[in-house]
Order: sequence, then C-alpha cells, then structure tokens
Amino acid sequence: MSNGKLYLIPCTLGETATDHVLPAGNKEIIFNLRIFFIEEIRSARRFLKKIGYPTPFEEVQFIELNEHSKLPFEARYELLEPLRKGVSAGILSEAGCPGVADPGSDLVSTAHECGLGVVPLVGPSSILLALMASGMNGQSFVFHGYLPKDQGDRRRKLQEIERDSLKKNQTQIFIETPYRNQHLVDDLLSCCNDETRVCIASNLTTADEHVFTKTVSAWKEQKPKVGKVPTVYLMHRP
Amino acid sequence: MSNGKLYLIPCTLGETATDHVLPAGNKEIIFNLRIFFIEEIRSARRFLKKIGYPTPFEEVQFIELNEHSKLPFEARYELLEPLRKGVSAGILSEAGCPGVADPGSDLVSTAHECGLGVVPLVGPSSILLALMASGMNGQSFVFHGYLPKDQGDRRRKLQEIERDSLKKNQTQIFIETPYRNQHLVDDLLSCCNDETRVCIASNLTTADEHVFTKTVSAWKEQKPKVGKVPTVYLMHRP
Repeated sequence: MSNGKLYLIPCTLGETATDHVLPAGNKEIIFNLRIFFIEEIRSARRFLKKIGYPTPFEEVQFIELNEHSKLPFEARYELLEPLRKGVSAGILSEAGCPGVADPGSDLVSTAHECGLGVVPLVGPSSILLALMASGMNGQSFVFHGYLPKDQGDRRRKLQEIERDSLKKNQTQIFIETPYRNQHLVDDLLSCCNDETRVCIASNLTTADEHVFTKTVSAWKEQKPKVGKVPTVYLMHRP
Repeated sequence: MSNGKLYLIPCTLGETATDHVLPAGNKEIIFNLRIFFIEEIRSARRFLKKIGYPTPFEEVQFIELNEHSKLPFEARYELLEPLRKGVSAGILSEAGCPGVADPGSDLVSTAHECGLGVVPLVGPSSILLALMASGMNGQSFVFHGYLPKDQGDRRRKLQEIERDSLKKNQTQIFIETPYRNQHLVDDLLSCCNDETRVCIASNLTTADEHVFTKTVSAWKEQKPKVGKVPTVYLMHRP
C-alpha cells in the first residue's frame, strides 16, 4: 500500500470567481479529498461550497492548523497518521498559497520527515503577482513579511532594505496589516530617496485591483491613498 | 478613449495540460489579444495553439522581448504605442511567470512610466511552488537566481547564504542551469552544515515532479541524483 499525499491547495484572494484564479484541475484533486488542514472552518467550508465540492461536510474531517501548527513534532506526526495509512489530505489556505506568508509549512516539513509526498497546486499568490506586475527585478528579490510595528524600528528597517536594494540590485517585498497601510506609506515617502521606486499593489485579482510603480518623488506629487485593503509593497533603488 | 492594458501571461512549465496549471479565465483574456511580447516565436505559437487561440497568426503581432528588453527607454516607449492608442497586449512567458526569473520586467516598468495599466494573470511559478512544497519558512525568503559559475565563488556564496538563513531565519532559494545540477548538488553537500535543510524541487507540475526536503546529513546518506531537468533549490539552516 502506498502512502497518501499532502496537497497544498491555494484559495482565491478575496471575492473573485474561482475559475479566474484557479486551474480547473485543482477541483478534481480537491473533490477526492476527505481530510483538510485549515485555518478557519467557516471560510474553508465557504471555499469548498464555492467550487462545488460534492461530499457532505459531516463526512469530511477539518483540522485547524492555527492550533496544531505550534504542536511539537510528535503531535504533527500524529496528524499525518491517515497519510501513512494511504489516505491523502489537503492543506487549505485562507487566502493565497499555503505556506507562503500563511500557516502550513510546519506540517509540510513534518510530511517530508515522514517521507510523505507533497504536491503544491497552482493558485494566486499576492506576493508573486505583485512582483510580476511591479516591473522590478524578478531575478533577485527578497520577501520580508511584516515590517516592525514600532515606527522608529520600521523607518530604520525601510532605510536598511533600501540600501540593500541598491547594493544587491534586489527587489524588496513586504506587507502590512490593512489598517496600518497609510502609516507605512507615509514612512516610505518620508524615509526613502526620491529616486527609489515603490510599487503599491492592492486587492490583487479582484475587481478593485490596483498596481502602480512610481518613484518616491512622483508618489510625493500624487500622494497614494491606500485604503484598509490587502496590499503588497515593493521597493527598488536603482 | 481609454488606454490598452498590458497583461502578464504565465505559461505551463514543461509538458502539462493547460487546465492543470492555468485558470480558465486566462483564456478569455488571451483570446482577445492580437499583440504579444514573447521570448521565442515557435514556443509562443505552440502555447497559443494548445489553448485554442482562435485568431489566425497572420493577424497577430509577435514582438520578441529578448532583443527589445535591452532597448533604451525611447524604444520601449515606442513598443507600447498601440497600448496608448487603446489596444491591449500581452507579455507571454516561455515557462512560468513573466518578469520572475524571466524577461519582461523592463517593458512592465516602461508601462508604469507611461501610466498604462498592468494586469498579472495567475499561473505556475516554479519558485513559488517549490517554496510552498519545501516546508521551509514562507514568511521570510530570498531568491538569488543563478549562483556564480566559478566553483570557488559558488561555494563561498553557498556558505554566505547558509549563514544568512540562520541569522535571519530566511529561506534561501536559487536555481541552476539543468546541465550543471549535479555540480551544484555536490557543492551543497560538501560545503553546508549537516543540520542544514535542503529542498530539491524538480520538474514541478509535470508527471515527473519530485520535491524532497532533507537535512544535508540525510542527503549524504542517500545521494540525490538530479537529472538535467529544471530544478529549484531551497536551503534553510535551523
């Protein structure tokens, strides 16, 4: 008997038709699964309903990852028991791709340690889409996740990564919690050099998608108003 | 009259059914385009045929990017003339996503400078899929592109990024031209610490997909044989 596989299942970013951002092939795979590692039960069920998942939810096992991802190795090993018995399972992202600025990587890591097969499915990643659309260097880039919350630390970090982008010709990518977007933008424009290029990519793949790359000096002339919406930031000092 | 848009169109990675890796929605967009910025005419036509593109190729304009991406701003501005007149166009990748370890970003950058809209479409990126499947830190990662060709330089670089992965808790991602895969693997195993985790992700999204993450010491016991196939490498020293 062969082992089950762990499928990594991306989800839409916000209110988007699934066939706009997910390959049809993903459905066939998802429809065959009965065990899902998830972030939040309600949104997981909503997603499965949206794609027409046929099995009644009473027959499906949903295991919350937020909790379990902090478990020690033994407990994660336990969670993967069905896979060792030949049953496949999926990690379902809340938005975007599992394991990329999202929980899931601990369980994937455990799957590798158990010698289980891991299969990543294609879907939208706001980080990757933002990089494509920024026009910045895609041969060399770094993703920092969230910058420090403290303003002094955040401004120092912005200056540090601006220097790195110049020194290494490397695109700097970072995110912010939506309600702090405007603070980050203000810091970006007040800390960074006028010739530094900044891309602000909001609401990717939705009807309100906006992606603009401008120099800091051009942004200063036309102040960006970033609402409380999911946004990816990219920076490059030429 | 509004401007045309520049669509960034991902392509399959190798021999994969398009509906396995591309959302159905991409087709509708592509079918409406008559101008494509491409890397190589033959593979562009092959891709368009594969997805059932309906317009005869005599009525389609293919503009090679390899050449034109090195053009000065004025020439790139010229290439975008149709968009300023209201006609949309696409950048078609050879494999994966335009602008990510692939040409295209210069033209996207010019589009931003002209105030044109840029729309990234969803598709397979071997870098992103490898990161998801590696089980390594997806909150903080860096992509280096190709490492140095010279063996001494390459080994120094591997040690440098291994130190970075420890210091910053940052996943290090890099690629190699297929025929040099085995040299890179040999260097990885001989330069890096035994506890460093290395992921080797080959032939992603194809029938021959292989993704394995192991410590250097585990890889030494079971020497990886990486063929001359597209491969992404990831490293993390815990």
